[in-house]
Amino acid sequence: MPTYRLTVAYDGTDFAGWQRQDNGPSIQAALETALAALFGHPVACQAAGRTDAGVHASGQVVSFTSPRTLPSRAIVYGTNDHLPTTIAVMAAEAVADDFEARHSASGKLYRYQVYNGPVRSPLHARTHWHVYNGRTLDLPAMQAAAATLVGRHDFAGFRAASCERKTTVRTIRRLEVFRPADRYPGSGADAAEISIEVEATAFLRNMVRILAGTLVHVGRGKMTPEQVAQLLTSRDRTKGGPTAPPQGLTLCRVDYGPRDAL
Amino acid sequence: MPTYRLTVAYDGTDFAGWQRQDNGPSIQAALETALAALFGHPVACQAAGRTDAGVHASGQVVSFTSPRTLPSRAIVYGTNDHLPTTIAVMAAEAVADDFEARHSASGKLYRYQVYNGPVRSPLHARTHWHVYNGRTLDLPAMQAAAATLVGRHDFAGFRAASCERKTTVRTIRRLEVFRPADRYPGSGADAAEISIEVEATAFLRNMVRILAGTLVHVGRGKMTPEQVAQLLTSRDRTKGGPTAPPQGLTLCRVDYGPRDAL
Repeated sequence: MPTYRLTVAYDGTDFAGWQRQDNGPSIQAALETALAALFGHPVACQAAGRTDAGVHASGQVVSFTSPRTLPSRAIVYGTNDHLPTTIAVMAAEAVADDFEARHSASGKLYRYQVYNGPVRSPLHARTHWHVYNGRTLDLPAMQAAAATLVGRHDFAGFRAASCERKTTVRTIRRLEVFRPADRYPGSGADAAEISIEVEATAFLRNMVRILAGTLVHVGRGKMTPEQVAQLLTSRDRTKGGPTAPPQGLTLCRVDYGPRDAL
Repeated sequence: MPTYRLTVAYDGTDFAGWQRQDNGPSIQAALETALAALFGHPVACQAAGRTDAGVHASGQVVSFTSPRTLPSRAIVYGTNDHLPTTIAVMAAEAVADDFEARHSASGKLYRYQVYNGPVRSPLHARTHWHVYNGRTLDLPAMQAAAATLVGRHDFAGFRAASCERKTTVRTIRRLEVFRPADRYPGSGADAAEISIEVEATAFLRNMVRILAGTLVHVGRGKMTPEQVAQLLTSRDRTKGGPTAPPQGLTLCRVDYGPRDAL
C-alpha cells in the first residue's frame, strides 16, 4: 500500500496544536479531513513533531498510507483546496512502505524567536515572545549557557512534568543564540529580534520551550551559565527557567537518513 | 501647544486602512481613541503615509497636538494599554510646534514582499503577495526594469485613477528587487521570497503597489524593461501592470530634515 510523505507548513496561532483533541481545532484534524476528501477514504496521519497549541511549522513532515496512487502535484493542490489559508501542504511524494514521519526521523531543527524591545511589536506578536524587563538580554551569557548544552546529555531537567519518555538522553548537534540584525545587517531584521536555533536527534516534551525559557532566564541575569550546566547534572526541572510561550516556536525542518532522504 | 511625534507599528490585516472611515475599523480611529483616553481630550492625528486597507507599518509616523505635557514613556505605555495587540506606539517625543508628520516628511521607505513559490505559504500569507504561474519570476528583468525608474521622473503612469495630486513628478532614490535568501544566506529566509524596497521623496496614491504590480508583470514576462521605460514616458496608467494587493506592503520608515530628525 503506497505510503506518502508530506511537508506541511502552518501558522499555529488559531489551533489547539498538531494532535486531534476535543478542546479546539487541530492541524491533524484539518489535514486528515482534507486528505479524506481528496483520497475518498478516511486517512490517519502521523507527524514528525507533535507541536503544541500556538506553535508554527514551516517544515513539518507527515506520513500516511492509502490504497490509491496519486501524483505529487494532485496531492499538494488537491489537499490545499480543502485546507484553511493557515495550513498548506508544501510538497508530497511516495516513499518506502515502512517510512514513518515520527519514527524514521534522524533529527529536527527548531527556531525559537524572542522580541527583546521595550515595546510590544504588532508585526512580531504572532511569531515572537516579547521579553523585556527594563534592559536588553545579556546575549554573551545566553551564548555561554547554550554552549554547555551542546552534545549528548541527559536532558531530564529540560522536559515537561507530563513527559513519559523513559530515556532522557538526547544529542543537541547545534544550539545557537544570535541577533539576526547583527548577523544579517541590512536584512530588515529588527534590532530587538533574538533567534535561538536548535538541532537535535530528538526532543523531549516541551524541551525547546524549556531551553528557550532557561536561556532567557540567563539573559535576564536570573541564572548563570554555570547554573545551567548544574541543571543538566541535577536533572531537576524545577531548577530551570520557565517554559517559553508557544508563539515563538517554529518547527523548521525534519531530517531523515539517506534511505529516507528526499 | 506641545506637538508630539509618534512612531507607530501595525499589522494592517484586520483594518480598513489608516484613515477613519465608515466601512470598518481604522488605525486612525483606534489611535485617536487611545490617545483621547490617555490625554483626557479629543485628539486629531495626522499620519505621514495614509496606508490602504491591509497595508502594514513598522515605522509609520504620526503627529498631534495637546495642551498637556506628558513624558515619552507615559505616552508610549499609556497609549498601548488602550490599543489592540495589532497596533502599538513604538516611540513618542515632543517636537517643534510646526512639525506635521505628513508635510514635514522628506522621504519614505516602503518594502513590498512577494512569495514566489509554487504553493501558497501560510507563514507568509499575511505579509506577502503569492505570485506563481508555473515558473519563477525573472529577477534580472525585474532589476533592469527597476533601474529605469530610479531618479526624478513624472510618475503619472504609476498612480491610482483616484489620485488627485496636480504634480506627479517624484524622485525615487532607491528601488531594489532581491531575494533575501540570496543576499542573506542562512538567515532562514525562504528561497521563494522576493523583496522590493523603494525609497522616494514622496509617493502618489497606490504608487508602490503599482510599481510592485508592474515589476511582477515584467518578472512574468508580460512586459519588458523597455516597455516600463515607455510607460514612464507615456504617463498612461493603463499600460502598466496590476495594482499589487495590499498585504505585501509595509511602510518601514519616514525621513525628516535635520531640523525634524530624531
